[in-house]
Amino acid sequence: MTTKQFKRISSRMHKRAGNVGDRPGLIRVPEGALKPRIKIYSYNTEELISSKGESIHTVLSQLKKCDNHTHWIKINGLGDAKLIEEIGDRLNISDLVLEDIMNTHQRPKFDEYDEYVYATGRVIISNDDCELNNTQISIIVKDNMVISFEEGYEENFEGLESRLNTPKSPIRNYGPGHICYALFDTVIDWYFVVLNQIGEELETIEDRIYENADKTIMYDTQHMKRMLIVLRRAAWPERDKINDMIRTESPLVTKETKTYLRDAYDHCIQIIDLIESYKEISASNIDLYLSMVSNRMNGIMKVLTIISVIFIPLTFVAGVYGMNFAPLDPVTSKPLPLNMPELYEPHGYLYCVGIMVLIGIIQVLFFWKKGWFKKL
Amino acid sequence: MTTKQFKRISSRMHKRAGNVGDRPGLIRVPEGALKPRIKIYSYNTEELISSKGESIHTVLSQLKKCDNHTHWIKINGLGDAKLIEEIGDRLNISDLVLEDIMNTHQRPKFDEYDEYVYATGRVIISNDDCELNNTQISIIVKDNMVISFEEGYEENFEGLESRLNTPKSPIRNYGPGHICYALFDTVIDWYFVVLNQIGEELETIEDRIYENADKTIMYDTQHMKRMLIVLRRAAWPERDKINDMIRTESPLVTKETKTYLRDAYDHCIQIIDLIESYKEISASNIDLYLSMVSNRMNGIMKVLTIISVIFIPLTFVAGVYGMNFAPLDPVTSKPLPLNMPELYEPHGYLYCVGIMVLIGIIQVLFFWKKGWFKKL
Amino acid sequence: MTTKQFKRISSRMHKRAGNVGDRPGLIRVPEGALKPRIKIYSYNTEELISSKGESIHTVLSQLKKCDNHTHWIKINGLGDAKLIEEIGDRLNISDLVLEDIMNTHQRPKFDEYDEYVYATGRVIISNDDCELNNTQISIIVKDNMVISFEEGYEENFEGLESRLNTPKSPIRNYGPGHICYALFDTVIDWYFVVLNQIGEELETIEDRIYENADKTIMYDTQHMKRMLIVLRRAAWPERDKINDMIRTESPLVTKETKTYLRDAYDHCIQIIDLIESYKEISASNIDLYLSMVSNRMNGIMKVLTIISVIFIPLTFVAGVYGMNFAPLDPVTSKPLPLNMPELYEPHGYLYCVGIMVLIGIIQVLFFWKKGWFKKL
Amino acid sequence: MTTKQFKRISSRMHKRAGNVGDRPGLIRVPEGALKPRIKIYSYNTEELISSKGESIHTVLSQLKKCDNHTHWIKINGLGDAKLIEEIGDRLNISDLVLEDIMNTHQRPKFDEYDEYVYATGRVIISNDDCELNNTQISIIVKDNMVISFEEGYEENFEGLESRLNTPKSPIRNYGPGHICYALFDTVIDWYFVVLNQIGEELETIEDRIYENADKTIMYDTQHMKRMLIVLRRAAWPERDKINDMIRTESPLVTKETKTYLRDAYDHCIQIIDLIESYKEISASNIDLYLSMVSNRMNGIMKVLTIISVIFIPLTFVAGVYGMNFAPLDPVTSKPLPLNMPELYEPHGYLYCVGIMVLIGIIQVLFFWKKGWFKKL
Amino acid sequence: MTTKQFKRISSRMHKRAGNVGDRPGLIRVPEGALKPRIKIYSYNTEELISSKGESIHTVLSQLKKCDNHTHWIKINGLGDAKLIEEIGDRLNISDLVLEDIMNTHQRPKFDEYDEYVYATGRVIISNDDCELNNTQISIIVKDNMVISFEEGYEENFEGLESRLNTPKSPIRNYGPGHICYALFDTVIDWYFVVLNQIGEELETIEDRIYENADKTIMYDTQHMKRMLIVLRRAAWPERDKINDMIRTESPLVTKETKTYLRDAYDHCIQIIDLIESYKEISASNIDLYLSMVSNRMNGIMKVLTIISVIFIPLTFVAGVYGMNFAPLDPVTSKPLPLNMPELYEPHGYLYCVGIMVLIGIIQVLFFWKKGWFKKL
Repeated sequence: MTTKQFKRISSRMHKRAGNVGDRPGLIRVPEGALKPRIKIYSYNTEELISSKGESIHTVLSQLKKCDNHTHWIKINGLGDAKLIEEIGDRLNISDLVLEDIMNTHQRPKFDEYDEYVYATGRVIISNDDCELNNTQISIIVKDNMVISFEEGYEENFEGLESRLNTPKSPIRNYGPGHICYALFDTVIDWYFVVLNQIGEELETIEDRIYENADKTIMYDTQHMKRMLIVLRRAAWPERDKINDMIRTESPLVTKETKTYLRDAYDHCIQIIDLIESYKEISASNIDLYLSMVSNRMNGIMKVLTIISVIFIPLTFVAGVYGMNFAPLDPVTSKPLPLNMPELYEPHGYLYCVGIMVLIGIIQVLFFWKKGWFKKL
Repeated sequence: MTTKQFKRISSRMHKRAGNVGDRPGLIRVPEGALKPRIKIYSYNTEELISSKGESIHTVLSQLKKCDNHTHWIKINGLGDAKLIEEIGDRLNISDLVLEDIMNTHQRPKFDEYDEYVYATGRVIISNDDCELNNTQISIIVKDNMVISFEEGYEENFEGLESRLNTPKSPIRNYGPGHICYALFDTVIDWYFVVLNQIGEELETIEDRIYENADKTIMYDTQHMKRMLIVLRRAAWPERDKINDMIRTESPLVTKETKTYLRDAYDHCIQIIDLIESYKEISASNIDLYLSMVSNRMNGIMKVLTIISVIFIPLTFVAGVYGMNFAPLDPVTSKPLPLNMPELYEPHGYLYCVGIMVLIGIIQVLFFWKKGWFKKL
Repeated sequence: MTTKQFKRISSRMHKRAGNVGDRPGLIRVPEGALKPRIKIYSYNTEELISSKGESIHTVLSQLKKCDNHTHWIKINGLGDAKLIEEIGDRLNISDLVLEDIMNTHQRPKFDEYDEYVYATGRVIISNDDCELNNTQISIIVKDNMVISFEEGYEENFEGLESRLNTPKSPIRNYGPGHICYALFDTVIDWYFVVLNQIGEELETIEDRIYENADKTIMYDTQHMKRMLIVLRRAAWPERDKINDMIRTESPLVTKETKTYLRDAYDHCIQIIDLIESYKEISASNIDLYLSMVSNRMNGIMKVLTIISVIFIPLTFVAGVYGMNFAPLDPVTSKPLPLNMPELYEPHGYLYCVGIMVLIGIIQVLFFWKKGWFKKL
Repeated sequence: MTTKQFKRISSRMHKRAGNVGDRPGLIRVPEGALKPRIKIYSYNTEELISSKGESIHTVLSQLKKCDNHTHWIKINGLGDAKLIEEIGDRLNISDLVLEDIMNTHQRPKFDEYDEYVYATGRVIISNDDCELNNTQISIIVKDNMVISFEEGYEENFEGLESRLNTPKSPIRNYGPGHICYALFDTVIDWYFVVLNQIGEELETIEDRIYENADKTIMYDTQHMKRMLIVLRRAAWPERDKINDMIRTESPLVTKETKTYLRDAYDHCIQIIDLIESYKEISASNIDLYLSMVSNRMNGIMKVLTIISVIFIPLTFVAGVYGMNFAPLDPVTSKPLPLNMPELYEPHGYLYCVGIMVLIGIIQVLFFWKKGWFKKL
Repeated sequence: MTTKQFKRISSRMHKRAGNVGDRPGLIRVPEGALKPRIKIYSYNTEELISSKGESIHTVLSQLKKCDNHTHWIKINGLGDAKLIEEIGDRLNISDLVLEDIMNTHQRPKFDEYDEYVYATGRVIISNDDCELNNTQISIIVKDNMVISFEEGYEENFEGLESRLNTPKSPIRNYGPGHICYALFDTVIDWYFVVLNQIGEELETIEDRIYENADKTIMYDTQHMKRMLIVLRRAAWPERDKINDMIRTESPLVTKETKTYLRDAYDHCIQIIDLIESYKEISASNIDLYLSMVSNRMNGIMKVLTIISVIFIPLTFVAGVYGMNFAPLDPVTSKPLPLNMPELYEPHGYLYCVGIMVLIGIIQVLFFWKKGWFKKL
């Protein structure tokens, strides 16, 4: 019997970097942040130039080179406060935005500023053991440039990158706002992957309830509920964010991109629907499990108690005929005729055993009549 | 005792065709999709011409022939990506719409485009074993044409087709938007059929709770809850969809049709009301069942325990008089007068049995007085 | 012990007349519908003329006779499709409205058409056995005429009729819209009657819980919950309907009538408040009942178990001294001095009984000290 | 052990005066209504004249005397339909308002009429035994006059009256609308008093759960829940009423008064917050109580069962050596050497007792190892 | 085993100062209020002058001295009604505002007056024992001045004060409204600290459930729920307050400050999200705990019962062979051959023991086959 199949999902909010009363806009590197790795894609309908590096110079040199391109600067790892500050300075980004990028526990949101837009989302991915990896992606769109900041090195957006690499891919026709859309669309696709896994797991759990309800059911359902709580905390604001992006009047989000965003919005609602359905199913699985356990326990106790009860009167009868009432006075040896004469009857023992068998049969018949042998 | 009467409804989201990061608008044939069968009805107030086929040519030839008719192109089966693409090309339909048609897990929705409208709904039908068949219907209305895409070959819209076949049927007076309405009205009618079945099943379950509460109650109610979850996930967005259709300003949905849509909207709300009521009834059935089971179990345990308790003191008394305290010293044979003199009394046995009977009666009276023989 | 005091309220939706895919607006006589009985009241401030009949001719002749009166045509029974159609034709009523009149499972609603308004409500009445009678009333107001359609022959609106009969009654000063209001006001009054009954029943149930909680509590509360579900399904849309009537701009609902409707609206909200309160009370009654039953069961089991446990060590002691370890070797008759010498002590039996009493007292004291004799 | 400490709060709606279908606006004296006692305060910034009486003449004579004053006519007791009608006639008050005054089960509301405003509220007061007294206060404000109607003779507004009596009290500077505000402000203050009592009671209950959870916990929490239901049914519409008064454009509610009303509105929201918090606390108290009871019961059952189980094998051993397998054939006296030779061993008894002690110790160790002696 | 680890959080509303019917705007010193300590910071971009004192003269002298500065007057302790009144008089603050400052149980709110704005919030801090300290902070912003009133002497805003002390700190560039923002931002930061603690505690509780579920789990979860209720009661209106501040048109809240407020608003929503998640986790922890306890109890009872049941038939057999049916008539010594001949068989005892062992083995096999030794 395995116990606690899944690693527990931490319900604790990860410690926010910073102290009470800190200046808002203060940039602090989150604990355990990785050294940034930078990729830059510069593309127009004809060509795509990409380079990799670890410092801002990679970016600057390519920006200089490609002046009529759209640029996607993809930064993985937030371990370098200077880099972020430099980007903030050059692009004239508000301190509050930079703080949000570094504080990796944001709710998904979309903020519009005079010259740029800022959006953040949560990339939730699970491995085969149903362990969630919940990281932040922050995106700044300004002029002809989109900058994405990811916490980890995972290649979560390979599909998008390969589409960008494909010559004549339609994605190259759209502006930087479309990259932002495409990133969040992928984020939402990942939610479907996790939900799919949860759905399968819930089905397996239900099968196990019917077949062999042990207490790991409880742990595993608990685990699923935690996953759903994490997903829901991301999905609801995600929906609002997409909606804000659809309604924005910023020229950085074009009308064509909004058509695609509406599609992403539908997916978001589908995800929320699924989460709510799965929550209901988890709850009813638990109800079913508790009812099964209680039924089984009741069944066992009933059988055991019936066995006891059948033997108790028989044991009493045996006890009675084990009493030592004497047939003769021990001193005078005078007979004491009414002291258990049954014991001295020629076939007393047979009668006695017969009575016992009779009592047993009557009891069994009575319980059977009452329907107590039936399963509850 | 039957177990698990109904086939379980899968809570798993069927795998979405496609991978994370795929291009939106990518058309993929869903797994196990059927080869399309095409029917085309071309009608005006005077005549109705219909033909069947499996390729787009059937459609094209009839469209050419009947140029002042309204056309309903009914496609059953989505197994042919080319057909869909060709239709998309000819009618100038957005890639995203085509993707939605092929991705058969859409929520009901109504989308308005410049030259056409697109709506999708869920046809939910159940067989006698309460197995749900939940398929998608997608509808495009453009110019004088309505195209419906269904997943399966089931003839779910026979009523509508036969009305269309009837000469002078009022439905022939309306435009293609009315066909779209009529299809969704039928979809809603199917919901009533399923709900009717659930309602009857819930009543049967309640009867069974009163008469003979076994654990299949739990399974069956669970099954009903699953059915209601599926229906609710369809009915709420269905309501919003109908509402969007009523509010649209597209000329494809005429004022007359909107009057009918308002009727469909009322039906939708009735369905939602029913679903919520049935959910409450399921929940209270489970409460009732659990209380019944616990009452019955308690009743059994009480009876059994009372029987034990009545015999325990009697067995003790028998045990006491089974003790071997000796009346005479085994070696010297001197009498030991206070060692269980009762055993050597002339009527000791009778007194003893009398005391046992008395103890038994006192106990029964005491328990009866306390009301423990009453049913809980 | 009575079981299942009340007749169960059917949770099943009564089968909608008609089949999937039927033409909307198709008039079908509901199953078991009664033959219509027609009453017509024609009144103005001075006089009231009324007649009865079973065919439309009664109506027509009186309409001809009284041309400056307000007419209330009261139809009880929907068994005659022709009559309805004829009325529809003469008054130019939409097919959809006629279908709604005949389909007796409408939600309360108020629909405004160009020349008339249509409203429907649910008359919910209960008898002394808490059996609900849930029928439909449909009302059409047009010109100087109000037509009401009821399912059954019950005289639910006697109060209103007698007010109309009273000379100089203020109701005669208002137009036909006021009759419509007065009918729905009466409908709402009936809800208060039913709620009053439920309130009393819930109190009785609570008394029974405190005094003698048996399992009929569960059935009866279940019954009350069903009644509340039925009422709630009617009361919420009723509120919306009244609200729609207040906001309508149709001249058929006059400003004076709207003042009265606001009063009816307040009553509706009061009813909804009461329903929600009663639902909470039902739920907490069930909680209380379950806790009572479990307490009582626990109490019984505890007493029984304590009795067993007190006797078990005593029986063991008796068992020990019932062992047959021999004082003398059976063959050689040599004494075996350490084999149960207690049995051959002069006062062994007394000591033994004394020890038993002591064990019993210690146990009782221990359990008493632990507080196990206290009621839970 | 006290049982059912508090008098039960009736969940039954008090019977509405009147019958189904009665004319709206019909004035009926509520059952058990008291004879009216009238107080009239006429004040301006300089002076306050007050008089008492039981008939309308008291009022009329003072109104004549004081023509540049603001009047507060305070009527306690609704037992005189004539008085109400006379007031209605003289002030030209709608029949519906008069009916509402007499029908003492109104929800709090604020209605605006052309020449006057009408508001009603619920005065909820509790005594030391947590018995609620829930009466109605109705207020009409017209011209320079405010008329308040209370059901009972309780002096619930003494604070306000004494402020009015104080010379130069600021309250004298405001118009009649301010008296209306001041009355409802006092009503809200009373809610705080009741909530304070409930809060203390809930704390006491929680203490009792930790110290000595008996079943009165259940009754008392139930009682608190009922009180909260009553308060909530009053507080929510109270909030809406105050809000309506803030938004009214009637000149009878001045801008200064509205500032004060905003303060009252905040208090109302605080009350609603408290009610909801207390409901949650009640619910979690019940959860805690049920868990405590179940823990205690489990603890008792476990101890008892362990005692039984320890003795059962011992008793079996004793039973074995109580068997009468004979060492010698009874007839031939030939030895039967393998028939329980233990009984004839020199130290058989000691070995036997030793084995019993061993079995007991092994069992205790086993159970202790398993952690079964630990508290759950 | 520790019991009741945390001090209970009072669910009782602290008694509101004042009596029913008191004049609104009456200033009463709350019970146990501390003597005010005043700090005043006067700053502009160049310099910061601060002084401390206990009377209003400290303030006045500094205000005179620094006439082109922004002033923050920080008052800790509300024990001096005169001081408050004097401030109210000099700044022309409404009596209702002064009453709200002194009545330390306000909900967070933001009120706008003609010449000043007033806002109040709740500072919720917890110590290591999870005891909450829930005090009020009230803030008045007028002209170039912000006055904050705190209940206690705790230095909750040290971070802010030190930022203000830092030369060239950006905070010195903003007006008094920014200090108000900065105070509430710190308040919200404190909420994160408390939530962080709750999150960690909930995790510890969950670990304890898996490892060693005792009843302190219930107490501690209860404690967490209480903390969450307190936080939620503060956080929801806090959100509305911040929102009101963002939407205000008062010039005291500048556009720059509003940008920061939007950041605070996001934090507020994050807090509300966390509270709701933690509530769900608490609830599911309790479910899990109850299921664990019940499983463990069931497991124990099952083992115990199985042991009993195995021995009961064996004891019965022993009882049978303990019966004293005599082989010889006691008087005549005639053999009674069918009276328990087994006892006089040469190997009767061995057979008997063999049968007992067999019965035991059969039972164990039967229970094992049934799966009753498996863990539930």
